[in-house]
Amino acid sequence: MSLIVTGTIGIDTVETPTGSAKEIPGGSCAYFAAAASCYTPTRVVAAVGDDWPADHRSMLESFPGIDLGGLEERAGSKTFRWGGKYLDNMNDRETLFTDLGVLEEAPPAIPAEFQDSEIVFLANTHPGVQRGFLEHLPNRKFTVADTMDLWINIARDDLVGLLGEIDGLVINDSEALLLTEQRNPFTAAKAIMDMGPSVVVIKKGEHGAVLVTSDGVAVLPAYPADEPMVVDPTGCGDSFAGGFMGWIASRGNWDFAELQSAMAWGTVSASFTLGAFALEGLQGLTMEQLEERMACYQAAARVGQTTIV
Amino acid sequence: MSLIVTGTIGIDTVETPTGSAKEIPGGSCAYFAAAASCYTPTRVVAAVGDDWPADHRSMLESFPGIDLGGLEERAGSKTFRWGGKYLDNMNDRETLFTDLGVLEEAPPAIPAEFQDSEIVFLANTHPGVQRGFLEHLPNRKFTVADTMDLWINIARDDLVGLLGEIDGLVINDSEALLLTEQRNPFTAAKAIMDMGPSVVVIKKGEHGAVLVTSDGVAVLPAYPADEPMVVDPTGCGDSFAGGFMGWIASRGNWDFAELQSAMAWGTVSASFTLGAFALEGLQGLTMEQLEERMACYQAAARVGQTTIV
Repeated sequence: MSLIVTGTIGIDTVETPTGSAKEIPGGSCAYFAAAASCYTPTRVVAAVGDDWPADHRSMLESFPGIDLGGLEERAGSKTFRWGGKYLDNMNDRETLFTDLGVLEEAPPAIPAEFQDSEIVFLANTHPGVQRGFLEHLPNRKFTVADTMDLWINIARDDLVGLLGEIDGLVINDSEALLLTEQRNPFTAAKAIMDMGPSVVVIKKGEHGAVLVTSDGVAVLPAYPADEPMVVDPTGCGDSFAGGFMGWIASRGNWDFAELQSAMAWGTVSASFTLGAFALEGLQGLTMEQLEERMACYQAAARVGQTTIV
Repeated sequence: MSLIVTGTIGIDTVETPTGSAKEIPGGSCAYFAAAASCYTPTRVVAAVGDDWPADHRSMLESFPGIDLGGLEERAGSKTFRWGGKYLDNMNDRETLFTDLGVLEEAPPAIPAEFQDSEIVFLANTHPGVQRGFLEHLPNRKFTVADTMDLWINIARDDLVGLLGEIDGLVINDSEALLLTEQRNPFTAAKAIMDMGPSVVVIKKGEHGAVLVTSDGVAVLPAYPADEPMVVDPTGCGDSFAGGFMGWIASRGNWDFAELQSAMAWGTVSASFTLGAFALEGLQGLTMEQLEERMACYQAAARVGQTTIV
């Protein structure tokens, strides 16, 4: 089924305890699309300014599955920029600067040829804007959104409105706590389901992710990554969502079994993002490489013998 | 193979956000033995005072697999007492009081009839005392210890000595960080392996556990427990270790596949402890109940379809 993503494309500057990278491709939409396009063609709707580097475009174009037909390069506008620094533990980070740029303007339009999209991912932005996109996607069959603490704090009503119109929410554990006041991820997920979505994914970073639907619960650890493997965690959550939605779109099915498989593919996709700056870990990935890493993941996450005698 | 555990038996007083219980059975050895004895006969070596309640003895005796042949009831001594309070999140706790009592006296002796034990678990106590037990266990084939922040801080040399003599260490993530200065659990586990043990298990509480050996890595999530299921987390780590070691002793084998299965059984055992105060969640557990919960755990932790086409 056709997959579309709306969200941000940005210019990132990242410092980690072991390295740094300036003005690299970033943004939720970029990471999502890079990961999702390994599984299925992925339509991108986003806006950048005329300062957007040509090599950032080339990078995105190097993913054969990405369709940039909904990317607006706006003359006189500035691309969204974000700078962040990871602390020693590679899990916590501080934002050094944010230049919203084009994100303060009107949202990008969904081109006519994308309006038949069936599988929809609304990457993190103002929930009012996310809701606005839905009007132009009349054929949507399975719609999932991401959000963040900022919108929970300053646009809760819009977010609650959005939750009533979508099928799934992908959210961090700290954001789930903020939204529901429930710290336990399973209890928080049920509170979110009461707000509308029938599928809730709570991302726990290095501790994996949890899926809750009315058909069951899935719990998956993160890919086992020792310190040398962790280069830059930026975009792991978006890549997880990309792998998750990419799998679902490629299967054309979101029953519990497919959602659970999608969680594992999201985990595998994110593990590639983790191993390099920007989109480099995902670039040129073959099905064989994805399957090989999945085999390692499956071996590590195996429950083992399940009968006593 | 014969399983022996040395450690504490105590009298606990526990407060949680939803309930409280006074003077209930506790201690690392009690929780370990209660969990392990579901899989294999378990020999207990510990000391209590003459204030140890008769109903605490009855409780331990209600587990058919527990052999109290190494339990010393000392006249004129006081049983170890601990009081703790769980914070709203049910994950962090504060200690309200600790009365060491009999733990400040000479450690219990290992009875002659227990000295042929092959599978050994040294539950948390001073590493010098843990090391002393080993002299009386000449037939030991697989020895695993637990430890805590206190000993890492005040008895590091003894602990390092112990690590050179044992096969495995089971440790919390925060303690692994304290011991190795490595926050990443896989990197920390490798640093611990450099100190001696060939098997390292890092417990992450509600986030599951990690196993590292020279043969591979296993990552398992905790059992999915929503808020109503979580009654009292006290003893979950010891019950995890009990299920882990009980499985290994029952199989008489600790190759990587058995260790990985043992991690899953430890997780299942701990999930029963979580659901009640003291040892009540483990009391009267049948193989059928353990296997039923394992089936739920396996379903939730399933990786799903692992090939793309």
